[in-house]
Amino acid sequence: MLAARAQFAANGFEGATLRAIAADAGVDPALIRHFFGDKEGLFAATLILPTDRVRALIEAFEGGPTGIGERVTRHYLGLWDAEGSRETLTALARTAIGHDKAMDRFRDFLMSTVGREAAALVDQDRPQLRLNLAMAQLLGIALARYVVRTPPIVQASFEEVVAAVAPTVDHYLVGGLGPSRSVS
Amino acid sequence: MLAARAQFAANGFEGATLRAIAADAGVDPALIRHFFGDKEGLFAATLILPTDRVRALIEAFEGGPTGIGERVTRHYLGLWDAEGSRETLTALARTAIGHDKAMDRFRDFLMSTVGREAAALVDQDRPQLRLNLAMAQLLGIALARYVVRTPPIVQASFEEVVAAVAPTVDHYLVGGLGPSRSVS
Repeated sequence: MLAARAQFAANGFEGATLRAIAADAGVDPALIRHFFGDKEGLFAATLILPTDRVRALIEAFEGGPTGIGERVTRHYLGLWDAEGSRETLTALARTAIGHDKAMDRFRDFLMSTVGREAAALVDQDRPQLRLNLAMAQLLGIALARYVVRTPPIVQASFEEVVAAVAPTVDHYLVGGLGPSRSVS
Repeated sequence: MLAARAQFAANGFEGATLRAIAADAGVDPALIRHFFGDKEGLFAATLILPTDRVRALIEAFEGGPTGIGERVTRHYLGLWDAEGSRETLTALARTAIGHDKAMDRFRDFLMSTVGREAAALVDQDRPQLRLNLAMAQLLGIALARYVVRTPPIVQASFEEVVAAVAPTVDHYLVGGLGPSRSVS
């Protein structure tokens, strides 16, 4: 699984081959096909983050509105900052955004797992919209810092990025979403 | 060029073929190779957005801090919302994020053109970091709404999204970036 994540992260979905992943893992390609079927099945399996890390992110939504933006931002970007989960998330984002079928699975995964569970924790109007706005912000920052690697965002410290982004996540999760006239 | 954009948007960089693009455009593949070299050269050419639209985005940065978040958000998401430029931007984002070489070109493009020109217009400390934070936010929202298409963000109206995101762009462009202790 580590070999698969590394291959998807480094080479994207098209560039990664079952043969190369099998060679990295020191197993026969037929073994991978036996367990995962095809490359897409293997990719779906790499989506699964360690449970304790996902749990920590969900827990960041608990504890009330004060400081929720900072807690969620720190935990989410912390996942990207940690070796191991960074590779998984990079592979997931690059593959999902670049390929239709992988994107369908990515969207289902987002909506059915982390999204549903965390949204229930936000005691606000329109929790799904709020959660998705916050996740879109966090994904955008993570892409800029860890995938596209635009220099000004790479050069800022982790703490600077958290300090800049946390008020935004507060805004989406527990703030006013905009003029009431435009909210249907 | 329209055929190339449509192919890259629909099928990604790997899935698009010069042969299919040539067929769509009603020309010989050899003609495309003559003008653009290879698929990567053709992709680079599709990055070029209509000048008047880029100009409108840069103008959104002008006019002082009051309302800058709303102007920039409206113009940027307006590019994604408009047919034609939406296909270009979708192709650009999907291809760049999924492929190393295309991403290098995408980053160079960001840093050298829109980024440099617009950052000069923001009369604040750390303009490059501010601009990149704002663009990361806008890219994240655009991906959620137009590429990944998560239902809560797709179902919100354009005006609702602008109203929710504009304060964030204000925060990054002209607000406080966080506790001064953490800003080096």
